[in-house]
Amino acid sequence: MYGTVRIELWKKWREEAYNRFIQDIEIGYADHDIVDLIECIFQTDSYFTTSSCSGRITLIDALYPWLRDEAYIVFKKHTPIEVKEIESIVYTQDPLNRFWLVSSGPIIHFVANSLESAIMLIKNVRSIGFKHSGIISVDDSGIVVEVISGTWTSFLLKDRQGLVVDPSALPRIVATANAILLEGKKRLQCLKTLFCKRE
Amino acid sequence: MYGTVRIELWKKWREEAYNRFIQDIEIGYADHDIVDLIECIFQTDSYFTTSSCSGRITLIDALYPWLRDEAYIVFKKHTPIEVKEIESIVYTQDPLNRFWLVSSGPIIHFVANSLESAIMLIKNVRSIGFKHSGIISVDDSGIVVEVISGTWTSFLLKDRQGLVVDPSALPRIVATANAILLEGKKRLQCLKTLFCKRE
Repeated sequence: MYGTVRIELWKKWREEAYNRFIQDIEIGYADHDIVDLIECIFQTDSYFTTSSCSGRITLIDALYPWLRDEAYIVFKKHTPIEVKEIESIVYTQDPLNRFWLVSSGPIIHFVANSLESAIMLIKNVRSIGFKHSGIISVDDSGIVVEVISGTWTSFLLKDRQGLVVDPSALPRIVATANAILLEGKKRLQCLKTLFCKRE
Repeated sequence: MYGTVRIELWKKWREEAYNRFIQDIEIGYADHDIVDLIECIFQTDSYFTTSSCSGRITLIDALYPWLRDEAYIVFKKHTPIEVKEIESIVYTQDPLNRFWLVSSGPIIHFVANSLESAIMLIKNVRSIGFKHSGIISVDDSGIVVEVISGTWTSFLLKDRQGLVVDPSALPRIVATANAILLEGKKRLQCLKTLFCKRE
């Protein structure tokens, strides 16, 4: 029946995903704030993950802040930033489109071994603030659930006509972007509480 | 089996939802930019909708722009705005937390009559820009799919210390917020093309 996962396919996929995860740690690709959580998820009976981000702050040059392929990443960091890290970019460079400071929360793609476990996951993560989570694909090797927190904000800093923000407010913008990043990391901690059993 | 919809329950829910939709039109609650589309969706064999918004621009007083219950809506409009509609608020009032101008895209909750039709919907709407769509609940009266476009942006205008933006840039901020709103409405047109058969 449609929606039924073939466990041998799911396990094969999980093995491939785990090997990639280990490789990413070795290469240094893995996002440190999230490694422990991913490890715990791989130890469950019902879920594994294929991709994840613990949240980050980027400065992008793009027409709109949600763009990926048509955006140029000028600056990127997975931890809080300082004003001095972006002010020289903002004051001395001009964007082709617009400079947006984007503070985004965690995003994790889970693969569940049944529809029931996918729906249980959605209920659990919604209750701890991952409000935009849902099943995005169903096939016989697994049910993919995108788990996203709504802790996302962009700040338009500069466009082709010049600065949009008051330079004296840049420290408050950076502080707000950092607070939003940390709000996302806090929700990540709640996920850890959900998945990582205490010793 | 889990994930199987009982069609008689789905049809009952559809009837209730349709009655509420008609009532909303009569009361004037219904969002005009989306009424035709919703009507077309109710005419399909596989889907109906329970709630929808065609996209809007709001000015809110909140700590973070994604908050709902802890946010105070100062201004709201489902069509493009003019600078004069918000400048007096921004210049003469002080926020309790922060004034954010939020431009958000369409959001529609569909109820599908099977898992297959839910997944087909997600594939179709993702390809026309509703990238954050997914199944959010499964029960025997229907599969609920949240269809969201990623065309969402906030602008931090003022905090408790004062203005964050340069007053001379307010027209460009409003123009960008309007462009984002219209980008969402354009995607709504694509949904109409998908659901409303031409005569």
